[in-house]
Amino acid sequence: MSDIQRLETGPRLSRVVIHNGTVYVAGLTATARNGDAGVQTANILQQLDSYLEMAGTDRERLLTVQIWVADMARDFALMNAAWEEWVPKGKAPARATCEAALASPDIRVEIIATAALKP
Amino acid sequence: MSDIQRLETGPRLSRVVIHNGTVYVAGLTATARNGDAGVQTANILQQLDSYLEMAGTDRERLLTVQIWVADMARDFALMNAAWEEWVPKGKAPARATCEAALASPDIRVEIIATAALKP
Amino acid sequence: MSDIQRLETGPRLSRVVIHNGTVYVAGLTATARNGDAGVQTANILQQLDSYLEMAGTDRERLLTVQIWVADMARDFALMNAAWEEWVPKGKAPARATCEAALASPDIRVEIIATAALKP
Repeated sequence: MSDIQRLETGPRLSRVVIHNGTVYVAGLTATARNGDAGVQTANILQQLDSYLEMAGTDRERLLTVQIWVADMARDFALMNAAWEEWVPKGKAPARATCEAALASPDIRVEIIATAALKP
Repeated sequence: MSDIQRLETGPRLSRVVIHNGTVYVAGLTATARNGDAGVQTANILQQLDSYLEMAGTDRERLLTVQIWVADMARDFALMNAAWEEWVPKGKAPARATCEAALASPDIRVEIIATAALKP
Repeated sequence: MSDIQRLETGPRLSRVVIHNGTVYVAGLTATARNGDAGVQTANILQQLDSYLEMAGTDRERLLTVQIWVADMARDFALMNAAWEEWVPKGKAPARATCEAALASPDIRVEIIATAALKP
């Protein structure tokens, strides 16, 4: 078996790549894009739960995340509220957030996560 | 003991997460925001020294950093001067820099660092 | 020998840093900047091949990449076409892409890659 595992691999990217106990998740955006940044964040975090489970880990083992929001003034507080509701108490990852135009204008949030496999 | 260590963990993020010999530091911004990008960078790097020390490592063991500046034209040269003064000769990490709007308009620089623990 | 290897280290950054089986490549931009995003991406990926080879690995072992494009509307499709032509079938890394102003206005694409060493 290869020392690198990939999940949902396409021509452009794999959704998840696992190597040396570390799980790299591709940038995730909401599947439904009509919601505000809070709704989109909750949708992304649901997808993230699912990818982490497929990889054999969970949200208690996140190491670091990068969060891009399309408009700080409009999106930051809504994203944070959804994020803080989801993060397990005492297990928050390192995090950095900035504003960035994303792949399409209706995308308000993108989250890139790195997690640890279970030991 | 858990295989994941966290420092200064809040509801939103941990300042530092350590796993498998790698130290993930959250995006750091200046504690005082009235300075220019050089002053803010120096302040951030002082904080980074302190977090690396708490984690049990130091600036000679940085692996990679991402630097976000609020305004390339205004901030890039000032940030670089403060950065190059701080980086240990012959031990510079990989680095990438771009312009991004940050969490508040008075933040001119944010630095995300990954380091190696001491062996 | 140190447990951290660095390639092409200057006062600001190293092009490549290797630790614990993981290869961190600095943000790469095109060496010739008169081309469109497709030409610049192809140039970057050629450089990336060369850095990965110097590190002792190759494009089949990429773990994750971040891609910054200067203008989504102008650059995204051109970058993607060059990217997908280069990515080995079935071995795509995790990936995240956003729009960001880069170090100079003629830079249309920057790619930050992380790869696994050969086992």
